[in-house]
Amino acid sequence: MRILGIDPGIERVGWGVVDAINGNSIYQECGCIKTSKDTPHSERIATISKELRSIIKKFQPDRAIVEKLFFAKNKKTALSVSEARGAILLILSELNITMQEFTPLQVKLGLTGNGRAEKKQVAWIVKNILKIKHEIRSDDAYDALALCLMVRK
Amino acid sequence: MRILGIDPGIERVGWGVVDAINGNSIYQECGCIKTSKDTPHSERIATISKELRSIIKKFQPDRAIVEKLFFAKNKKTALSVSEARGAILLILSELNITMQEFTPLQVKLGLTGNGRAEKKQVAWIVKNILKIKHEIRSDDAYDALALCLMVRK
Repeated sequence: MRILGIDPGIERVGWGVVDAINGNSIYQECGCIKTSKDTPHSERIATISKELRSIIKKFQPDRAIVEKLFFAKNKKTALSVSEARGAILLILSELNITMQEFTPLQVKLGLTGNGRAEKKQVAWIVKNILKIKHEIRSDDAYDALALCLMVRK
Repeated sequence: MRILGIDPGIERVGWGVVDAINGNSIYQECGCIKTSKDTPHSERIATISKELRSIIKKFQPDRAIVEKLFFAKNKKTALSVSEARGAILLILSELNITMQEFTPLQVKLGLTGNGRAEKKQVAWIVKNILKIKHEIRSDDAYDALALCLMVRK
């Protein structure tokens, strides 16, 4: 089973692809879709959607895990991120990809045993489980890969 | 020029179609897309998107006006509505429909001269300008028609 993890945002959308085979998680690829602040809002959503569609076309995932927004310090950011999330959910639904959602708290708890674990620790565990040797420079990509690992739970 | 007004929501999406010809606004049709609370969230977004696509196909609007969420009492509702909004913005962008956004405050102010006008007053003015004789039972449809009238501003 091939899993696509997505960490939604309006400025950065992290994504990761992991194969789950006989209880093993095998890393395929990850990345981060970026949009510029100088671009009109609806164009940013269109860019995210276009890139997400091409990732799905390339990797043909069987299932997607999307991070759930459960609270937000910045209200305006929360609304923007939710709009991006809505566009992502629509694409997954239209392409008939089964979708699951987890909050950051659930992911941290499931992966590290600590709901308040630091980003560094999550990244370290993701790298170890997936035996990734190279450097991944995007926290959002790590978060997306972490979502993929929740399928084992 | 044909204008599609959209009042986004997750439970109800109001829509209205108005033609702007030589400074006159001519009513075409309006309605409300409804989704059930018992339906999974991503399915509700898919339903809204499917119905919106068929409305656009039928009426072929030149331009769309979408209500902007500028604050929300209920945080959880705000996130859901924003997700629906994101899906709607994506559809408009993919269909190359020029899009404008107004907050409820701007619409009330532009239409009634009072940013705190009651829904009833907005409905009354919309009915008068558009010479609508029959009963429209959806507040959301009125809000969508009010958005269409903002193009004259």
